[in-house]
Amino acid sequence: MKILVINPNTSEEFNQKLDKAAKEYALPSTEVKVISPKSGPKSIEGIYDEALSVQGTIEVFLDWENEFDGFVVACYSDPLVVYALREITRKPVLGIAEASIHLACLLGNQFSIVTTNDRWAPLLREAVKKYGLEPRCASVRTTGLRVLDLEREGEGAVEKAIEREALAAVKEDGAEVICLGCAGMSGFDKILEQKLGVPVLDGFVCSLKLLELFQQYGLKHSKILTYAAPLSKELTGLSSRFSRVYSKNK
Amino acid sequence: MKILVINPNTSEEFNQKLDKAAKEYALPSTEVKVISPKSGPKSIEGIYDEALSVQGTIEVFLDWENEFDGFVVACYSDPLVVYALREITRKPVLGIAEASIHLACLLGNQFSIVTTNDRWAPLLREAVKKYGLEPRCASVRTTGLRVLDLEREGEGAVEKAIEREALAAVKEDGAEVICLGCAGMSGFDKILEQKLGVPVLDGFVCSLKLLELFQQYGLKHSKILTYAAPLSKELTGLSSRFSRVYSKNK
Amino acid sequence: MKILVINPNTSEEFNQKLDKAAKEYALPSTEVKVISPKSGPKSIEGIYDEALSVQGTIEVFLDWENEFDGFVVACYSDPLVVYALREITRKPVLGIAEASIHLACLLGNQFSIVTTNDRWAPLLREAVKKYGLEPRCASVRTTGLRVLDLEREGEGAVEKAIEREALAAVKEDGAEVICLGCAGMSGFDKILEQKLGVPVLDGFVCSLKLLELFQQYGLKHSKILTYAAPLSKELTGLSSRFSRVYSKNK
Amino acid sequence: MKILVINPNTSEEFNQKLDKAAKEYALPSTEVKVISPKSGPKSIEGIYDEALSVQGTIEVFLDWENEFDGFVVACYSDPLVVYALREITRKPVLGIAEASIHLACLLGNQFSIVTTNDRWAPLLREAVKKYGLEPRCASVRTTGLRVLDLEREGEGAVEKAIEREALAAVKEDGAEVICLGCAGMSGFDKILEQKLGVPVLDGFVCSLKLLELFQQYGLKHSKILTYAAPLSKELTGLSSRFSRVYSKNK
Amino acid sequence: MKILVINPNTSEEFNQKLDKAAKEYALPSTEVKVISPKSGPKSIEGIYDEALSVQGTIEVFLDWENEFDGFVVACYSDPLVVYALREITRKPVLGIAEASIHLACLLGNQFSIVTTNDRWAPLLREAVKKYGLEPRCASVRTTGLRVLDLEREGEGAVEKAIEREALAAVKEDGAEVICLGCAGMSGFDKILEQKLGVPVLDGFVCSLKLLELFQQYGLKHSKILTYAAPLSKELTGLSSRFSRVYSKNK
Amino acid sequence: MKILVINPNTSEEFNQKLDKAAKEYALPSTEVKVISPKSGPKSIEGIYDEALSVQGTIEVFLDWENEFDGFVVACYSDPLVVYALREITRKPVLGIAEASIHLACLLGNQFSIVTTNDRWAPLLREAVKKYGLEPRCASVRTTGLRVLDLEREGEGAVEKAIEREALAAVKEDGAEVICLGCAGMSGFDKILEQKLGVPVLDGFVCSLKLLELFQQYGLKHSKILTYAAPLSKELTGLSSRFSRVYSKNK
Repeated sequence: MKILVINPNTSEEFNQKLDKAAKEYALPSTEVKVISPKSGPKSIEGIYDEALSVQGTIEVFLDWENEFDGFVVACYSDPLVVYALREITRKPVLGIAEASIHLACLLGNQFSIVTTNDRWAPLLREAVKKYGLEPRCASVRTTGLRVLDLEREGEGAVEKAIEREALAAVKEDGAEVICLGCAGMSGFDKILEQKLGVPVLDGFVCSLKLLELFQQYGLKHSKILTYAAPLSKELTGLSSRFSRVYSKNK
Repeated sequence: MKILVINPNTSEEFNQKLDKAAKEYALPSTEVKVISPKSGPKSIEGIYDEALSVQGTIEVFLDWENEFDGFVVACYSDPLVVYALREITRKPVLGIAEASIHLACLLGNQFSIVTTNDRWAPLLREAVKKYGLEPRCASVRTTGLRVLDLEREGEGAVEKAIEREALAAVKEDGAEVICLGCAGMSGFDKILEQKLGVPVLDGFVCSLKLLELFQQYGLKHSKILTYAAPLSKELTGLSSRFSRVYSKNK
Repeated sequence: MKILVINPNTSEEFNQKLDKAAKEYALPSTEVKVISPKSGPKSIEGIYDEALSVQGTIEVFLDWENEFDGFVVACYSDPLVVYALREITRKPVLGIAEASIHLACLLGNQFSIVTTNDRWAPLLREAVKKYGLEPRCASVRTTGLRVLDLEREGEGAVEKAIEREALAAVKEDGAEVICLGCAGMSGFDKILEQKLGVPVLDGFVCSLKLLELFQQYGLKHSKILTYAAPLSKELTGLSSRFSRVYSKNK
Repeated sequence: MKILVINPNTSEEFNQKLDKAAKEYALPSTEVKVISPKSGPKSIEGIYDEALSVQGTIEVFLDWENEFDGFVVACYSDPLVVYALREITRKPVLGIAEASIHLACLLGNQFSIVTTNDRWAPLLREAVKKYGLEPRCASVRTTGLRVLDLEREGEGAVEKAIEREALAAVKEDGAEVICLGCAGMSGFDKILEQKLGVPVLDGFVCSLKLLELFQQYGLKHSKILTYAAPLSKELTGLSSRFSRVYSKNK
Repeated sequence: MKILVINPNTSEEFNQKLDKAAKEYALPSTEVKVISPKSGPKSIEGIYDEALSVQGTIEVFLDWENEFDGFVVACYSDPLVVYALREITRKPVLGIAEASIHLACLLGNQFSIVTTNDRWAPLLREAVKKYGLEPRCASVRTTGLRVLDLEREGEGAVEKAIEREALAAVKEDGAEVICLGCAGMSGFDKILEQKLGVPVLDGFVCSLKLLELFQQYGLKHSKILTYAAPLSKELTGLSSRFSRVYSKNK
Repeated sequence: MKILVINPNTSEEFNQKLDKAAKEYALPSTEVKVISPKSGPKSIEGIYDEALSVQGTIEVFLDWENEFDGFVVACYSDPLVVYALREITRKPVLGIAEASIHLACLLGNQFSIVTTNDRWAPLLREAVKKYGLEPRCASVRTTGLRVLDLEREGEGAVEKAIEREALAAVKEDGAEVICLGCAGMSGFDKILEQKLGVPVLDGFVCSLKLLELFQQYGLKHSKILTYAAPLSKELTGLSSRFSRVYSKNK
């Protein structure tokens, strides 16, 4: 199976982390390629950033779609683009937030998300509500650190902040499982699990493994209603690859 | 007051409808300009279309921001771009779905939305849930017609389909107020209201009038947490106007 | 447009505050009259008080209905009487809680209400739930002060208590917008907004401006189901003006 | 034990029905008196009617409070006055809707309410939500008949309409228990239960029996927060009995 | 009326407490027998314990069913066995959690449960959600003590821990009523009520009194859908009394 | 990896179906053993049946636990025993309902469950609510057929009934994904998927594949709070294997 991991930001360090995690957890028969869009922000720390990443992410998907069997969009923001891609392909596309949250619910009664800057607290609570799993969410906690601090700072300091919030989620909020709420936290899962004594999920690994599961069981997204193929229409000022989608989906 | 109405699709006919409604309902002291992005889809009938409209919509906003006091994004899909714009400006930005739904709740116990193709039923139910108003929503009904049919077909046929669904919402679902679920339905509100005997809301007019209210009362979006200014970062392959935002928001 | 503001308590000081806010925010073409019932409690600090204000409030409405185009019931308790009046008139009637809460949701993701004595915490949470907006409500906080303290105490002390709770709502509960939860707090909005740096809403101004919006857009309450005209019946021991309503609504 | 049943409308026929049911189900040691206010509407078919019944209901309560141990407000509309009375007395006060709905949940997974005119569908759904039991409510169904038809029509016709809706609730909505949604339906419970083969609850009997249970177990309403005693204040234009409440509750 | 109280654990001390409470609160005409299964755990402190009590509890029910008119399953864990028994009998069966929680909602706006070890916090929140009453639940608090400590420790220490948590529920969580969340706390209700000044409910007494109410009003569980009689089938390796149920329910 | 599938009923035909599905979908490196308890009902069609299967299911688990790495409890009823087993082991245990429902949510916006007799409609809606995923559930539909009909009837007839309800779920309820709501439906998934054109999930396969995923990613249930090890206590009248659990979990 060939999986394309689209990191919708342009941080090469993120790609390396994802690549390392993929190497560690993918089945031997799975080939994983991690890629960033050619255009867009260096990190996704809010909706403006996400908005700027949309077009580039679709572009990179369209360029590579034919060569892969499944796709991860490796941003914990419940990106709009996941739903756009599901419309234009019959192959499975997963976001890393939904993947980790659903698996978390199979491992414990209540989960918490630990993420970066404060804006994500309301935004991820909204995403959890959209997934339908608000009753299972003990809390969304933020470290107050920026996404790119995950690289720039000594990892010890960042890891310590994540651990502090995760511990508070367990002790104060009743969390039984922790979800790492940023692709840049990839690789911390088992270290933190060791310290906390509760399951800690890396959303990227979760989506990677779920795509393998989908392939083995022959699962694909539903193509009626929400993810039905887009209706053909005139596009202005956009590369022709964007409208080729319509004929392909006929 | 100067209001910029961004129709995120490129349909000139939509712009004319919005312009007509603006002329009818704006205060004499309000100046309204309706504009489409230079690039993007002719209509927004799903998330792929919305995704393709994002960049163009931000661009047109950035080009005109300084000359206007308030902004409408005239698409009923609860566009992501509304939230992106709120991050990068201190001036009010409204979507037409949220505007009509909140006003509907002040006019009756239960409202229904009547919109175009079937995909919008799950998507708009999700938007209503995100706004928090699911308990007030009797139903989301679709005519099965396409957005651009709102122009191409004899308007009588389209209007009849909308009326049929709106009537069913009232008779079968317990709706006391109807929200027209597409910017292209602008202008049908009072005609339908006459026929049904219940309030019918044109989301565009709702957001236009709410922006006037915001100005008169001095209301602006909150700039903490969800709509806080974006954090400065490197952008790749994007026009420099997108990164000028960061210095402006410092 | 002529707006009647019914302050359902008999405090003249309240009326003066409301009058002042009306003068500040009403359009030049809007005429506002603030009035209290002839009978009832000096303040509304619970359901017993509200119950005692019901009959007087309807009376004053019936006396003046013909001369006005819209009505505010200026009590933050989600008064039953708002719904009673909607049954007996075709003209718009707004409560100040619903007005401010819906506008708050257009300005930020989460709002909090700051009100007076502790009883209002469960009661206003119930009201928010009834409006359907519980998922948007960060908290209801109380100062522990009494309604009439809003006049009697040095305003500085009261304002300080409101500021303290509003700040806690922002810092601890994640509120992005504050609603002042008592008509007697009218006039504090912009002062507090200045201090907190987040939007602060005076429910009275919100409902006043919404009534103007309703008039300009031609909006009226739905008259089916919930607010349908009352069914004619025998009334005992009540002034004949109460039964004249039936013939008028035929 | 002495129970005062306040029928907040002025229909003598209602009182007779309630009296009959009380005679059938009260313990031998329970003394029941059914009474109407001196002023108010002949029936309660909406919020305007309820509003007009408020003052008279409180008056009759104040006149008789000392001689009784518990109180029923025999109207299925979740009357505001129940909550007002709980503030001003330490003796238990029950509404008939809450009483029947809570008992219904102990008898089956899902209940439905069958009531009179259509307005009650949204209003009783709101009441159920306020009680917190919306997840247990299969439906609120209305016969379209008026409250006083419960007397005037041949009872057979009315009973048939109730039976039709109750059957539909069972067959189509998944109801396992039926609540009769009007005090005027008192006496139909066991007849309908016989026909439908599912439990049918008369809210009046439920509240009567619960008051006996409260007495036997020594239960009284909580007097903190929501039902705390009213704060003393000036009353204008109201009989002095209304302000005597304050000194009594000190 | 004859009521069988099945304490699903094998603690004789529990039985004595229940017996004492029954003596105190049952009507003179009610005969109460408290019994434990012949097999099972000494206390129920989790789902494993509950699972081991299931078969013994059904056995003891089948042995005694004919001689009693109503049944209490005296464990606060919302035991599965309550629902199993409702399938196989037409006589009323009540759990003590549901009984106390529904009565609590008739006494105050918000209730809290105070129980023993920490696991019950998520489990009882789940039960409350299942009953549909989550919106009325201020909190579930645990003392951290074990069930059998309720006997072994000086009762003073245990009572102090319960009081501490109950007080915190009132002061910090907004609880207006307290439910004692363990059958072993039977007998503390009125003592704690005295100290806290808010109603405190012993779930066992609640269910006992509700069964008396059921009998007096002629209430029985619904026998359609959820509690319909079990469908006859082959049983392997189980005493024949378990399959006699099928023929009886034909 | 070695997976033990416990079919909690004693139907050998079920075991054969599960065995066949395991052979089709398990990885080559996975060894699967399907087993039934020695005692219990031939099918699980309600809570009484489930209750009778509890002890036997725990017994068979205890007998085999050491030789396996993961466990499926192959009954769609959200069995209590799943939670009991999670307390007494550190190895993963999955139910088939939760497994299929979470995966369904990753494949479409709304899912429906199609199951056997009518009682499961309220019971499975309750289970879905407990998992937290009610907002994603379009409907629970029942064929009205009995569990064992899945074998006895010509499979064509049963399959036709399932197809009819699944189609209605898609056409009328807005389902985008179908979950087969009974272990006995194992093997119909891909046939039905072919006919309906939407994803159809066999809960057994889902849990089998998730256990493989858990192993590959090193996931185990959280052992704090809800699934913490049981507290040691005296057991009466039960085989000693049940109390050996306590020492093992120390």
